[in-house]
Amino acid sequence: MKKRIFAIISKAEDGDLASAIFDYSIMALIVLSVLSIILESYQDIATKYASLFSVFEVVTVAVFSIEYIARIWTADLLYPDSKHPHVKYVLSFMAIMDLMAILPFYLPFISADLRFLRMIRLFRLFRLLRIFKLGRYFTALQIIVHVLKESAAQLIISVVICMFVMLFSAIIMYTVENPVQPEQFPNVIASLWWAICTLTTVGYGDVYPITTVGRFFAAVISLVGIGIIAIPTGIIAGGFSNAISGSEQKKEEKHYCPYCGKSLDK
Amino acid sequence: MKKRIFAIISKAEDGDLASAIFDYSIMALIVLSVLSIILESYQDIATKYASLFSVFEVVTVAVFSIEYIARIWTADLLYPDSKHPHVKYVLSFMAIMDLMAILPFYLPFISADLRFLRMIRLFRLFRLLRIFKLGRYFTALQIIVHVLKESAAQLIISVVICMFVMLFSAIIMYTVENPVQPEQFPNVIASLWWAICTLTTVGYGDVYPITTVGRFFAAVISLVGIGIIAIPTGIIAGGFSNAISGSEQKKEEKHYCPYCGKSLDK
Amino acid sequence: MKKRIFAIISKAEDGDLASAIFDYSIMALIVLSVLSIILESYQDIATKYASLFSVFEVVTVAVFSIEYIARIWTADLLYPDSKHPHVKYVLSFMAIMDLMAILPFYLPFISADLRFLRMIRLFRLFRLLRIFKLGRYFTALQIIVHVLKESAAQLIISVVICMFVMLFSAIIMYTVENPVQPEQFPNVIASLWWAICTLTTVGYGDVYPITTVGRFFAAVISLVGIGIIAIPTGIIAGGFSNAISGSEQKKEEKHYCPYCGKSLDK
Amino acid sequence: MKKRIFAIISKAEDGDLASAIFDYSIMALIVLSVLSIILESYQDIATKYASLFSVFEVVTVAVFSIEYIARIWTADLLYPDSKHPHVKYVLSFMAIMDLMAILPFYLPFISADLRFLRMIRLFRLFRLLRIFKLGRYFTALQIIVHVLKESAAQLIISVVICMFVMLFSAIIMYTVENPVQPEQFPNVIASLWWAICTLTTVGYGDVYPITTVGRFFAAVISLVGIGIIAIPTGIIAGGFSNAISGSEQKKEEKHYCPYCGKSLDK
Repeated sequence: MKKRIFAIISKAEDGDLASAIFDYSIMALIVLSVLSIILESYQDIATKYASLFSVFEVVTVAVFSIEYIARIWTADLLYPDSKHPHVKYVLSFMAIMDLMAILPFYLPFISADLRFLRMIRLFRLFRLLRIFKLGRYFTALQIIVHVLKESAAQLIISVVICMFVMLFSAIIMYTVENPVQPEQFPNVIASLWWAICTLTTVGYGDVYPITTVGRFFAAVISLVGIGIIAIPTGIIAGGFSNAISGSEQKKEEKHYCPYCGKSLDK
Repeated sequence: MKKRIFAIISKAEDGDLASAIFDYSIMALIVLSVLSIILESYQDIATKYASLFSVFEVVTVAVFSIEYIARIWTADLLYPDSKHPHVKYVLSFMAIMDLMAILPFYLPFISADLRFLRMIRLFRLFRLLRIFKLGRYFTALQIIVHVLKESAAQLIISVVICMFVMLFSAIIMYTVENPVQPEQFPNVIASLWWAICTLTTVGYGDVYPITTVGRFFAAVISLVGIGIIAIPTGIIAGGFSNAISGSEQKKEEKHYCPYCGKSLDK
Repeated sequence: MKKRIFAIISKAEDGDLASAIFDYSIMALIVLSVLSIILESYQDIATKYASLFSVFEVVTVAVFSIEYIARIWTADLLYPDSKHPHVKYVLSFMAIMDLMAILPFYLPFISADLRFLRMIRLFRLFRLLRIFKLGRYFTALQIIVHVLKESAAQLIISVVICMFVMLFSAIIMYTVENPVQPEQFPNVIASLWWAICTLTTVGYGDVYPITTVGRFFAAVISLVGIGIIAIPTGIIAGGFSNAISGSEQKKEEKHYCPYCGKSLDK
Repeated sequence: MKKRIFAIISKAEDGDLASAIFDYSIMALIVLSVLSIILESYQDIATKYASLFSVFEVVTVAVFSIEYIARIWTADLLYPDSKHPHVKYVLSFMAIMDLMAILPFYLPFISADLRFLRMIRLFRLFRLLRIFKLGRYFTALQIIVHVLKESAAQLIISVVICMFVMLFSAIIMYTVENPVQPEQFPNVIASLWWAICTLTTVGYGDVYPITTVGRFFAAVISLVGIGIIAIPTGIIAGGFSNAISGSEQKKEEKHYCPYCGKSLDK
């Protein structure tokens, strides 16, 4: 029976109807759960259907709890070679997300604060990630993840450089603009908000320099901003270019030995 | 005679004057039709030349209708190997667009609502796509379409990741900013508008966070926004990089050994 | 003497001091001329030093005129193999720019309108392009021009697709938003302004949708905007990737004949 | 003893505890020093803990001064082959930054102006760059620096083209918009602010064209802006694409013929 339950909660094999029904039901419940977060944000809907939302919440948490326990129980079938399969599963990323999505509802002191509760329920969004495992775009996702992982070190350095430039810009801008617009640039942290808006080229327009010196520095920083965006884009583009050409090259490449002339491709 | 009509409505062969005249007349009518949509949006012009616009509309729909019928009639010449050429043509993308551009004018209950009618007439814009078939840039378009198709799965995944991040950002921002600016962030859907404006770096500046916590999350989301843009750009750049190098490699591939004169391509 | 004048106005050879002095004097005069356009835009400076600006203008036009005549006169030394070297030179891009920069000052009916005159003087900016010929970054510029030329057809198609999407967006947005904000979206052309601001992700924030339907379409259009930017970026990135790897590959590539094993690289 | 001091102030070798403690203490002091700049920007904190900030400042400058002198003293061990190791070190980039971070505090006429002093203290941010030398992401940084250096000439040309387009746009926009909005476009330099905001797609929304002619030019300039961003992104992407594929190719290059066993690499 344990094997059967494991088969059901695992990704459905072709022809296993019960497992497929289970997969899609859980998916539907996650989507509905996220939808209920959106709907509850409408004041009038939240008040009108308050009891409905409560019931749905209880049902959702109950189902997710049973699923969570079942997954831990069958962890030894998931990791047959592991010494401590249950511990290993509990500490996996998806299991922690699953726990975060249900745990707060068993802790009354947390669930008392409605705002904090909503934040916690956000973890259910991560449960949506399971959808990717079902879909036929899984290979495409794996390529994206692979490219990002390959260039992770360079991307982290770009972010660090970006933060360095932001801090630098913020301190300069605070010094230049604070005496003229103390409301907009009250301190370095507030000035950092401007720096981020500018370097990411979002540019809301709530804070901007008005002095000539400030505008000069802002112009230089904006131009640097293009570079700041260009570096990670370039890294990722380079990564994809090689990921694609690498897979194509393997197919097309033909090598011959210069000594005996025989083909080196088998 | 059917063959002659088919030759005329198909893309003009060199020297077939009647067909070329037909092609360019239809193109001119489509462009004029789009222009009339633009001009009618000016209140004073629409009122002044109301009758002129009506007459032009009737003429346009009449010509497009005749063309549509002629194309269905000659569909068996377009798809000589197909069992049901007429059905196949009617269900093709361009034929559906053509139908959408004329059908509403035969349905009085639709054409009664002027606003809806204008939306429907937008389908004529799609008829503009036929221009691409005439132009000399057709090869360049085919390369773009080819690259986008090749990386379609990865681009779809990027869009899905993007939507996931947007929903996530919107819920966080609603939770943080709603108590302070209930007007700007009344619910999650309104908050989603902010998330889209920020992640695409458009940043109109109609909605932006004012709390410190909100600004912190907005800063993180903006930086993620750069990554969100960088991924599809990287995918497309990688695609083009390989499309160009691939086509160049094929040209250069015809080599012969200068010593024994044998072809090096197998 | 003609040969000497030609040597002076051409790009200076090493050691030719007179030619080098001429080159840098003309450059300085062009830069000063552009600077005077900027300075004259300050109302108080323009009024205070009005006579100075007039004298400088006369001197500049006089020098540029003499240079222009000298260049035409020596055109037969520039194009020794051409049948009509003077005509060929007069019709070259740089010569037309040079003429545009001086001609208006000999036509009193044009120079009467100060605003139009300023626009005309902008052609002097194009004269700045001569600086590139002097500089040591000329090779880098040639690579950029080469890559842009190689992908010109695809870039043009991207711009056409971009305009198509803009027109489409503008008509939808006008239809949706006009009844609610007739001031912001009075007609399709005004709506096009919004579409351009959004698709290029500039987002000034002077015009933005306020209806839910409008925001939904704006969100879709913003996301399409990322793609619209990603395509030309991808094309250019692909072009540079191949331009660089192409030049490197030539150096590193080693081919061997599969039949006789001899090196194919000489 | 000199050798020991040199070992301590140099990057710590494995097992050298004193040196590691020194490295991380200096890092901590730099980070704290930057933090104090941020904290002092809060008016109330600056007033309340004025004496604390003064003491911390004196301590920081004292430590940095001792470190600076020690580094100069041991410069002959850093550059054993140089004739003038002390002069060489004093003129190195990091040494100049180090000096800039302490020198102003010994010059009373500079330290009198508080605002200027804060700007000067920004040089301490550059001292943060030393962190990169410690970190394990040093290789990733070197690749980024290498790619940027390789494409430096092309990037400089892009910036020059960008500035050319900006100046051009500013003069056109001033001419078109100045008569209608003299407040927003008072002169060419102010108009340049608009051009930079638009071409970098930041778009604060503090200045934008309102005339139809101005909007037309702004639309064209915005579209050019996409290209302006696409060129450096493309250059950097191309550089990374080749840097990655180049390093991968080198690793894979060691092949042997399976038939005759000879090395295929020469």
